[in-house]
This record gives sequence, C-alpha cells and structure tokens, in this order.
Amino acid sequence: MKYTAHINIMPLKELLDPQGKAVNNSLHNLGLSNIEGVRIGKHVTMQIEAGDSARAEQVATDACKKLLANQVMEAFTLTVTEG
Amino acid sequence: MKYTAHINIMPLKELLDPQGKAVNNSLHNLGLSNIEGVRIGKHVTMQIEAGDSARAEQVATDACKKLLANQVMEAFTLTVTEG
Repeated sequence: MKYTAHINIMPLKELLDPQGKAVNNSLHNLGLSNIEGVRIGKHVTMQIEAGDSARAEQVATDACKKLLANQVMEAFTLTVTEG
Repeated sequence: MKYTAHINIMPLKELLDPQGKAVNNSLHNLGLSNIEGVRIGKHVTMQIEAGDSARAEQVATDACKKLLANQVMEAFTLTVTEG
C-alpha cells in the first residue's frame, strides 16, 4: 500500500536561527511589522510503499534519523497519510 | 491576539526537484528502497499579532507572496493556529 509522509525539520528552539532572523527583519522592512519569531526549516514529502501506516511511519523516521535531520541541531515531526 | 502560522513552500509538481532526487537516491543507497518521489521544500513558522485568525492568515499570505515564496517555481500552503 502507498503512503505519503509529510516531514517537518526545524532548528531546535534553543538555537539561534539566523535565516529566520533575517527574514523577520525583511518582513518588517516590507511593512509587516506584526510578525515575530520567524523560524525556517525544511519540509519533505515522500511516497512510501509499506504494509501499514505504522510501518510507513517507521521507514520515514529511519530516513530522518539516517539522512534528513541533523539531530544535534534539528528536530523533526512527521505525519503519514494514505495514498 | 497571538497566532502561529505554519507555512509549507514546495517546488511546483511540474518542476524537477534535483535536491529531492539526490536525497531519494541517497535513501536507496542506505537501504530504504521502498521510498519514492522525495520532494524538498521549506517549512516556516511565525508568530502574528492580529485581531482574528482570518486577519492573521491574510498577513501570512502577504508574507509568502511578498518575500517567502517564488510563485513562478513554488507553491505555498499555510495554516494558522491560536497561541
């Protein structure tokens, strides 16, 4: 069965996010001054062929731990949907 | 009132995603061969001070159109939650 994994990989809260800070400032310069705390990470989607959704989630978690996320600096969350 | 916007910015389906393709191959090399169609985009979160959630959504959409997303190559989706 085919599943789609939706993965968010974000810099840890404890760490500065210079890219987010720069975007925050740029948004203020564009007149959007009611925005604060911009943080920028990655969004990854992938199709996984697996027997059930628990197994698909396991594969996606593996992919994050082995390659996608640097767990020293980043945290990941993921959801798996059918199809 | 404070709202949090969760924004996903992904390369358009019609376009090649070389970064996603490279990650796809790397995952296969790591033995995760039941993964296909990896696509990589950005995930952005921000705090927005606004009167109601419709207004907060409007501000986040503005931020995407004016700065965050390149609409020639990327599509964005967003959700707004309280707090």
